[in-house]
Formats: sequence, structure tokens, C-alpha cells
Amino acid sequence: MVKVGIVGGTGYTGVELLRLLALHEEAQVVAITSRAESGRRVDDLYPNLRGHYELAFTEPDIQLLAACDVVFFATPHNVAMNMVPELLAAGARVIDLSADYRIRDAALWSAWYGEPHASPELLDEAVYGLPEVNRAQIAGAQLVACPGCYPTSVQLGFIPLLAKGLVDPGQLIASSASGVSGAGRQAKVDNLLSEVADSFKAYGVEGHRHLPEIEQGLADAAGESVALTFVPHLLPIIRGIHSTLFARLRGDAGDLQALYEQWYADEPFVDVLPTGTLPQTRTVKGANRCQLAIAVPQGRDTVVVMAAIDNLVKGASGQAVQNMNIMLGLDEQMGLRQVGLLP
Amino acid sequence: MVKVGIVGGTGYTGVELLRLLALHEEAQVVAITSRAESGRRVDDLYPNLRGHYELAFTEPDIQLLAACDVVFFATPHNVAMNMVPELLAAGARVIDLSADYRIRDAALWSAWYGEPHASPELLDEAVYGLPEVNRAQIAGAQLVACPGCYPTSVQLGFIPLLAKGLVDPGQLIASSASGVSGAGRQAKVDNLLSEVADSFKAYGVEGHRHLPEIEQGLADAAGESVALTFVPHLLPIIRGIHSTLFARLRGDAGDLQALYEQWYADEPFVDVLPTGTLPQTRTVKGANRCQLAIAVPQGRDTVVVMAAIDNLVKGASGQAVQNMNIMLGLDEQMGLRQVGLLP
Amino acid sequence: MVKVGIVGGTGYTGVELLRLLALHEEAQVVAITSRAESGRRVDDLYPNLRGHYELAFTEPDIQLLAACDVVFFATPHNVAMNMVPELLAAGARVIDLSADYRIRDAALWSAWYGEPHASPELLDEAVYGLPEVNRAQIAGAQLVACPGCYPTSVQLGFIPLLAKGLVDPGQLIASSASGVSGAGRQAKVDNLLSEVADSFKAYGVEGHRHLPEIEQGLADAAGESVALTFVPHLLPIIRGIHSTLFARLRGDAGDLQALYEQWYADEPFVDVLPTGTLPQTRTVKGANRCQLAIAVPQGRDTVVVMAAIDNLVKGASGQAVQNMNIMLGLDEQMGLRQVGLLP
Amino acid sequence: MVKVGIVGGTGYTGVELLRLLALHEEAQVVAITSRAESGRRVDDLYPNLRGHYELAFTEPDIQLLAACDVVFFATPHNVAMNMVPELLAAGARVIDLSADYRIRDAALWSAWYGEPHASPELLDEAVYGLPEVNRAQIAGAQLVACPGCYPTSVQLGFIPLLAKGLVDPGQLIASSASGVSGAGRQAKVDNLLSEVADSFKAYGVEGHRHLPEIEQGLADAAGESVALTFVPHLLPIIRGIHSTLFARLRGDAGDLQALYEQWYADEPFVDVLPTGTLPQTRTVKGANRCQLAIAVPQGRDTVVVMAAIDNLVKGASGQAVQNMNIMLGLDEQMGLRQVGLLP
Repeated sequence: MVKVGIVGGTGYTGVELLRLLALHEEAQVVAITSRAESGRRVDDLYPNLRGHYELAFTEPDIQLLAACDVVFFATPHNVAMNMVPELLAAGARVIDLSADYRIRDAALWSAWYGEPHASPELLDEAVYGLPEVNRAQIAGAQLVACPGCYPTSVQLGFIPLLAKGLVDPGQLIASSASGVSGAGRQAKVDNLLSEVADSFKAYGVEGHRHLPEIEQGLADAAGESVALTFVPHLLPIIRGIHSTLFARLRGDAGDLQALYEQWYADEPFVDVLPTGTLPQTRTVKGANRCQLAIAVPQGRDTVVVMAAIDNLVKGASGQAVQNMNIMLGLDEQMGLRQVGLLP
Repeated sequence: MVKVGIVGGTGYTGVELLRLLALHEEAQVVAITSRAESGRRVDDLYPNLRGHYELAFTEPDIQLLAACDVVFFATPHNVAMNMVPELLAAGARVIDLSADYRIRDAALWSAWYGEPHASPELLDEAVYGLPEVNRAQIAGAQLVACPGCYPTSVQLGFIPLLAKGLVDPGQLIASSASGVSGAGRQAKVDNLLSEVADSFKAYGVEGHRHLPEIEQGLADAAGESVALTFVPHLLPIIRGIHSTLFARLRGDAGDLQALYEQWYADEPFVDVLPTGTLPQTRTVKGANRCQLAIAVPQGRDTVVVMAAIDNLVKGASGQAVQNMNIMLGLDEQMGLRQVGLLP
Repeated sequence: MVKVGIVGGTGYTGVELLRLLALHEEAQVVAITSRAESGRRVDDLYPNLRGHYELAFTEPDIQLLAACDVVFFATPHNVAMNMVPELLAAGARVIDLSADYRIRDAALWSAWYGEPHASPELLDEAVYGLPEVNRAQIAGAQLVACPGCYPTSVQLGFIPLLAKGLVDPGQLIASSASGVSGAGRQAKVDNLLSEVADSFKAYGVEGHRHLPEIEQGLADAAGESVALTFVPHLLPIIRGIHSTLFARLRGDAGDLQALYEQWYADEPFVDVLPTGTLPQTRTVKGANRCQLAIAVPQGRDTVVVMAAIDNLVKGASGQAVQNMNIMLGLDEQMGLRQVGLLP
Repeated sequence: MVKVGIVGGTGYTGVELLRLLALHEEAQVVAITSRAESGRRVDDLYPNLRGHYELAFTEPDIQLLAACDVVFFATPHNVAMNMVPELLAAGARVIDLSADYRIRDAALWSAWYGEPHASPELLDEAVYGLPEVNRAQIAGAQLVACPGCYPTSVQLGFIPLLAKGLVDPGQLIASSASGVSGAGRQAKVDNLLSEVADSFKAYGVEGHRHLPEIEQGLADAAGESVALTFVPHLLPIIRGIHSTLFARLRGDAGDLQALYEQWYADEPFVDVLPTGTLPQTRTVKGANRCQLAIAVPQGRDTVVVMAAIDNLVKGASGQAVQNMNIMLGLDEQMGLRQVGLLP
């Protein structure tokens, strides 16, 4: 059995890791840390876990974590970058669900996160954990930076078009919408049910922290720089991200449906829907899956790609487990076969 | 008192007309028709109306309706265009909330609605009831075609940019989202709570019937033809439309915030929010108001406009009452001063 | 015009007072206080109020408030009881929406609220502001304690049965459910959308603070002591309280439907639904109305009463305005004629 | 592998059977019938199943179904009772999720369902499939009648009290609330999102069809007749049932927490929560689990039991799979280890 440690287990990506790993045949969670809840059983905080875990939260302890085969960081940014160097030195593999190692350029990271990076020397070593792009590097990595939720949906949607050079990389638009769990389990008035239920709004229009991460990934795919207008919106639901992507075709694009189907033919967790079927967040709820659809409305020169994921699964904890499976040479789908909870 | 008749009063725009007119100082609903519910009291079907109306639904009767000062059609398309000629001949004013008279080109209408138009001779006479564009013509009209819900939000958002020639009219994008009440009160599996709650999806990507209506209005504003990529989405809420609009700036656009504030300075029902505040559907819930915000993310060349309305109010019944007020020379805000229901 | 002051205007009952008073023909809000938001315009915090108020929040100032004709306290408990004595002394009328003056017995109040009462000498003077019970006393009151939201629904539902002696007062049961806005606008993890959406639970089963208030009112109606088992539940919606009440009939109860209809025949804000129609929170959303239904399932000896209100209107701010109207000799319905927002 | 057939697979209990059986190690769905969708792939109707099934719906065919080891009926009432005799004769085991075989008294069944029973001769043979009560009989059964969703929650909550004779069986009250998926996937206006979202109401107060089923089970537990006042309510969510149960204690009840913990100590799918923790529908969402809590508010003589299940899992399809496992001698938990989807 693989010994798993989780740093920062009280948030939503933490409990989601526990939910997924409870059914993982080869992984055993042996440590889960939380300063605030130290000593409390995880199933007391999250009664859905009763009967699945005997574990309690503990204070973070590098020694204990270093003894794990894999350590997940399910923390806000600015935690992993301080603890990871020591863990790597001790030989542990690390999968960071936070933003700390996603952007390769430390100055760019600092510009968006408003502070210096604490371990910039690791940015080159960290592998961006989007398996559909970097599977081979992930397999050999000691440190994986799990992509953000919006970036996962936007990249999986745009990459075939950009890699094939079919669209203008300087005029990309992503109109995305996320469930409120993406904002985490923080006590903020803004995320009260009474503030966000029964409503819809854009936010972060002037600049969301996922923008540089997305543009980095899209530029890699395009082989040139890109410009993305990214507008996230807040959905009055708990889970789910839906991205509607717009790009200008450079000419006759050929059969885009066939392109997407072929591009992702061997990907177990990317599902190109048949023509005429559009993704819904409910069809991937609780599942480690990205569903995609492509259209060229009225046969004009704008292509529309729609992508749906569960932000806590393929957008966070499920993708993290997928990365773990790859890093450890396990079946990539182990623990990740759950079916979307529909209805 | 103005005598008001409503054709097709069992749907959501019908009950919304009743809700608004209950507080209108000068209007009295004297007839409301429904074949299916004939004989039933309106407050039996809609108990929120108890104490406000003694009225019962009746079979549609041209004679009776013709005796009204104003007749609203709160019907699906294909009803008004058959009854309106007779009503106009009898001297009644008509405000049609359906799509029958919104598109001036009968052939275009037929292409999108899949049938011949029953009274194309009235298309020239019908005034498109967007008061912010056509106030003077509405005042003198006998037949007003109330704009669709999506078209109201998209036009109010785009018009200043297009009228000023600031953006490329050939590359317009609208990513809109609507509450489920926009789909009406029809018994369809697709609109069951268990099918659409807790989810989000795009629909009608290949071509939504509101597209030609929007493009007609935007072309009028631009003074040239336009091309819009319009992707509607379904929100798991009852009321509310939010449109996120994208356009390519043709050059230095100047102070767009000031432009919008000036453009709508005298409009009682269009509210340009201060910089930094973004519209939410909850702030206009139940109110006859469109709230707008403008941004140019990262100072690049794509402008983003956000527009929020209540699809049943400014997107339908409220706008219909606004048109009635204008047609009858009443205070335009009469009956429409309700405050958005927040929280 | 009546000069109105509001203490604690940033919470949900505060903004709801503003929403209702915006349409009140005789009231003008001249002061609204908030320590946290002092200096901020109310329509900046609550953009639904744009165009309706020019007001900004100010620091609480007894002088200023004392100059008002009526002062509303839209505060948590423990604020009013410290400020009210001075305001009364200055001649102002006070309507307290908090719990401070609802319970006549200071010791009982202290037992449930965990602190001494700061102005117990006013408990005798304070009138419990349930107009359907105390209209005459309210008219002459200087200090009115507005009932809690649950207590309003439970008392209006039970009173006719208890006043007529038809049920056993020692075996009363109330299974109530409230929208999340009842918990206020506090930054608490427990009220995040991600914690309470898409779920349902009981809470406070061992003892909710509204229990002694309800039992006090029911005992007044019964003319003897009562015992109530009160179980509140949390609904994944913003507004609305629904109480399902159970009592044991003492014998043949006669025509309960007729009893309820007669009991409330002259009440403008209590609506006894016809047999076969059951209340829904949506039919009273935004309206100052309690809808009631009565049933005796299977003709057995348990009577069931269902009551629905909007917790922020008839359960708080609407009832407060109703009390103001009565206190000032205005039309009791002034500003309160809004129709429930359905759908 | 066990060959499984499903009759009526297009409804919510049908797709839920497919979701659960996709991860069942020993079961293979070989036939799924639907007259309306015959020929359509199941993953076309339910895209969450893509990658998990290659199956298409077929016309019901007794021959084909009889070749299965187990046939589930996921149909409305009045289907199974016509087809089951032939299937049993052919040697198949049948698990009926509908109401057809739940009530042992054919006359009582007819009184509530408004038609004669088509195969009353099987009522004695049918085993009521509540494993916590009838595990041994289920193991030997050829025909199992799966309990209704409300009945599962109410019986599991009340049984220990009644079996121990601790409460008055003539004064039982159940105030239950269900998500809308309980109403099935029928095109009805009443279940549109716009009709039931953002609201709460009681329904069926005069008599719900689950009442005789519940009273039958409770009388079995009590060893005497019982009288239950049962009021169901509709929750604006998709999944989940919460029942709040009230009963009069006959005297000192002793340690009820200990009683419940012992009663269900060996039950894998009934979870008695520790004192102070109350069940929520979200903690059992998607899981085959009933969570219970017990309280005696204010130490008076009314006991309150709260029970939460997912109506589609422990209230339907999960319990059906549990019954299958028992009937076939498999591990009772096989395919049912999924963790509740929280948040």
C-alpha cells in the first residue's frame, strides 16, 4: 500500500481527496494535518466519511509527512512553497494542489500573488500536472503542480485548436463559470448562501490569478505567445466548472469534431461528446472527467468549445490522484472510476 | 383607469404582468384569457395574487379584448400574429410579448420559426419596443413588439459601442445565461428541477431564435451589418439573465465608463454601475432594470460588457408595462418602481 | 413625512426595511447606522437600492436617532436593550426587531441569552408586536418588540386552536423550516453556500431561543401553560419559513376551516387558504403575508396546521413596518401591498 | 458474474441502478428495457454513463428478462404486478422497486392505488426488502418488494422505540421532506424548476400512499396497531430525504442513544450519529446509508428522531442492490461502498 499524507485536510479539496482515496485499492491515508482542527477526527468534521476513516487531524510534522510515499498539499497558496523543499530533500513525492508551483516564471508568480516566491529554485523541477499534456514527465517527477480548476477546463478545450494552429492565438476568449466550492471553505460574507444563491455574476474581470497559468499552458500548446480574455463567473451551485471558449478560425478548419475525437482518443478522462450533445456540469459531478463539445455556429469564423468538469475532481483532487497513479506506476484510473452523480 | 386585457395569462409572463399591474395606479386588468384554465380564478392558479384580483380566466374573445385600451399577448409565438389584425382593426392598442412582430423581415422570421408569418403586412407598422432606442415611435404606436429577454440584455450592452463605431461589428460575442423561467411554464422533462438544478450548460449553440432579433437591433445601432456569436446557457435559478459581451476595439476607445454613463444618463431603467462594481442577477430580481458594467481587461483590445436583467421584468412583462406607459402618455415609471429583492 | 432611523442597517432585516420603505408613501429614512460601514453609501453595499436612496451609513448617534419619529433596531440581540432607554427618554418611538424585549420575564430571557438584561425595567412597557394579537396596545406603544420569524408563523398557526381550547396545550409540536437568511449576514462557515445548499437538516433540537418566546405567546392564547416541542430545520433557500404544526384534538373540533377563516377574516396580512390548497414559501416571497392551511389527516385526532411566511417580511421587517403604521395611525397596509414574487 | 436485467430503465431509479452497478464487481447489466427509448443507447440519454456501458434500451421481452439471474423493476406501480408472475415462473429472481408488492393486504393496496391488484397471490410470497428487519427472509426470497423512500427513513427511525415499547404507538408523527427526484422523471408542470426551486411546501397531507406501507412496518415492529400522522414536504433539491419523527414516551426511556447504537451496531448501512451531531441529507448524498440522531428536547416526554437518506440510494436503488447482494449470497456491501458527496 502507498502511504499518503495530506497537508491542510479541512478544506474542500482535502475532504475530496479523502472521499476518492477511500475507494483507492492501493493507497492508504496515514496522516492528515490541520492546525485548526488538530486532534479532531476527520469523520467528526465530515460525517460523510464515517465508517471509512479512523483518522484524526494532526499538527503538520515534516518528519511524519516525509515518511509518506506521497504528500498532497490541499492548502491555499503560500504553504507548499515553504514546506516542500524539506520534504523533497527527505525523499517524499509531492503533489501540490495549490498555485505555488504552477507558474514557471517566479517574477510572474510574484506579480499575481503579491509576494516573493519562497522556493523559486524548484520551479524548474516542478512538473505541471496536466496528464493529457505532460504524462511522461509526471511519471518521472518528484514534485507535481496540479493545475487550477479553470485552467484545466480552458486548456483541455483550447489545446487541439492551438496545437494545430487553427485559430488566432491573439484573440482567445474564455467565459467560464464555477460553483462556489471553488472559493474554498472560508468564512466570508461573499460566499454565504444568502449572498450567492439564486444569482449569477461575473467577477475578477480585471484579472484573475488563473490567467497567467492558462496563458502559459496555451502558449506551450501554440508554440507562440497567446492573449486570452478570461471572464470567470460564479454559479449558485456547489460543484462544477463550465467554460465556453471562443476563437477566430484562421481559415477552413476541416472536421473539428474528428480532430477532437482523435486528439483525446486515448485519454481515459477526457470525453469528446458526439455532435449535438453539449456538456453539463451535472454529468461530471463527482467524476474525474472533462466533457467537451465543439461547434462553429452558423458556419462563420468563430469556433466555440464547451468544457465541463467537476472543479473538485478533474479540477483538483481527482486530477491529483490521477497524477499520483502516474507517478507511482499504478493504473491511471485506479480510484477514479466513479460515475457522475446524475440526477 | 386604463382597461387592460391579457391573452394567455397562465404563463410566467402573464402572472408577472398581473403582479406588476396590481400596483399600477392607472391600469385595471379587465380580461385575462386562457383556453386551458377558463373559468378558474387567477388567484387559485397563482395564490400570490390572493387579495389582489377577483378575476377569472376566460376563453379568448376578440369582442371583449377589443373593448380594452391595451391588450398584452403573453403567449408563445404564433398566437398574436393571428389575432392582432382584428384587434388593431377594432382600435385596440397591442403589446406583444411574443416573437411574432420582432423581426421586420418576414422571410427571415419564417426561416427561424419554421412557418409562414400570418400577418406580414403588420411588420412595418409594428414598433420594436425597446424604449431606450425607440421611445418616440413607441409613443405613437398601435402595435408594439416587446423585445426578447436575451435581446434586451445584449442590445443595451452593445449599443453604445456600436453606435459610436468603437468596435468591430463583425466579431461580436455574447455569452449569456438565463434562469429557467425563460423556458416558460411547459410540462417538459428538460426543465424539471431534477434535470436542471445544480447544473449549468450551454444550449442552442448552433442557432438560437433570438440571434436574428439581436443582430437586427445591433445592425440598426451600428449602421452596418453585424455578426454575433451568441451562446446562451441555462442557469439553475428561476429568474435572471446575465450577458457577458465581448468585442474587439478598433483603436483607443477613450473613457468607456463615461460613455456608458452619459449614454444612459436619462434612462430610468438602465443603470450603469460605477467602475469596480459588477452586475448580479440578484440585484435586479423583480425590478424593471438593466444593470451594466464595462471593462477592458489588462488594457488589451477586447472590451467586456456585463448586463443583468430580470428576464421576466425588463426582459418581458416589466418592459411591456413600460411600453404601455409610453404609449398611453403615462409616467414611464408608473407601476415599475419596485426594488430588486435582495437577498 | 415620518422621519425614520434604522440602527444596524447592514444586515438583511436592515436592507429589507430599506426595500419596503422605499415605496412607503409617508416614511422617509433619514438615518441609518453601522459602525463597520460608516461613510459608505447604502446603495454601494446593496446595489438593488440604487436610484432609491442617496443615504450613507453613519456611526450610531443617539442625538440624531432621537430626532426621528421612529427608530428601528435591525441589530442582533444585546444592542437595543442598551440604547433604547435613552431614546425613549428623548421621546422617540422604537421598534426593535431583535429579541431584547420579546420575553417579559427577565430571568427567562437571561437563561436563554446567557447574560443579564440591560434594561429589564422596560420589559413591562414593551408591547409584543404581533398585530393580530395586540393591535390596540401597539397603537399606543412607545416601544414595540417585533416577534421572531419562527414565533410569528407558529403563533399565527396555533392561536385559534388554543384560544378555543380545542387541543391539548401540553402536546404541541412545531416542525419548522427556515431559509438561510434567518441566520443573518455573518461570516460563518456554517452558512456558506457550499455547506448548506443542496441539503436539509434539523438544528437546535435541544433548545432554540425562539422556544420561550413562542411558549409565552401560546400560553397567552391558551390562558394556561403550554408545552411545545419545537424543531427548526434549515432550508437551502434564502427566504421563507414554513411551519408544520401538530396538536391533539380534545374532542370533536367542528369545522376548523370555518374557524380559521372567521378568526382571521379582518386581518389584511393573514390569508387562510381554501381547503385543498397548501401554503408554499414562494407564494409569500417578498410579501407581508402569512398563508395558513388546516387539515385533520384521516379524520383522526391530530390536527395539522401549515403556515408560510417570508422570514424577512412578515417574519421581520414587513411586520415592523406594519407596527409602525399602527403606532402612527397610518393605513396599516401602507408600503406593504407588494405581491409575492412567483415564480 | 450475475446477469442483471432492468425493466423501466429511463427513470431516476433506473439510471441510479446503472450508476451503482457500474462499480459492482459481480454484476453485469445485460438488459435494460424502455418502450419509449427502445434502441437508444443508455449513455446517450444519460451522458454520465459514457465509458461505463455499451448497452441500449430494448423493448421489454419476458424471454430475455427471464434469462437474467435478477430482474429489477424500476417502474411506476402497476407494471411489475403484471409481469412478475411470468418471470417467477421462469425461475428469475425479482426485486421490485415499485409499490406493487409492498403492502400485504390486497384490499388495502387497492384502496390506496385505486385499482385491483393484478397478482395478489404473490403478496404472501413477496418479502419486504428492508434488510435491517428481514435479512434472513430476503436471503431466501425469489421476490423482494423494495421499501419506499419515505418508509425506509421513517421505519429505521421509529423501529427501536416501537420494538422496545417505549412510546405510544397511537400518537406517532412523521414530518418528512424529500428532494424532487422522488417525484420521478415525468413531464409535469408541478416539478419544473421554476415551480419548486427556492420554495418549500407540504403536500399529500390528507393521505400519502406511503402511509399504509409505513404503518404496516411500524405495526410489525410494535406488535400492535399504530397510528401515524405523516406529512411529507417537498425540498428544492434533487436528492435526499429527511424525516423528523415525534413520539410520546411512555415513561422513563433510559439511554436512548445507547439503545439506538446497540440496535444498529451490526448494520453496515445504518449509522447512529454521536450525541450532538444531527443528520444532513448532504452527508449521505449518493451513499447507501441512513444516518440517525435521537433527542428528547428539554427532557420532556416527547422523543425526536431524525433520519436522513438519499432517496435514490438507501431509499431505492442502493437498497435494491443491497437486497440483490443478500439474495445472491454476495458481500452485502458490494458495489455500495461509495462515500457521500460532500460538499
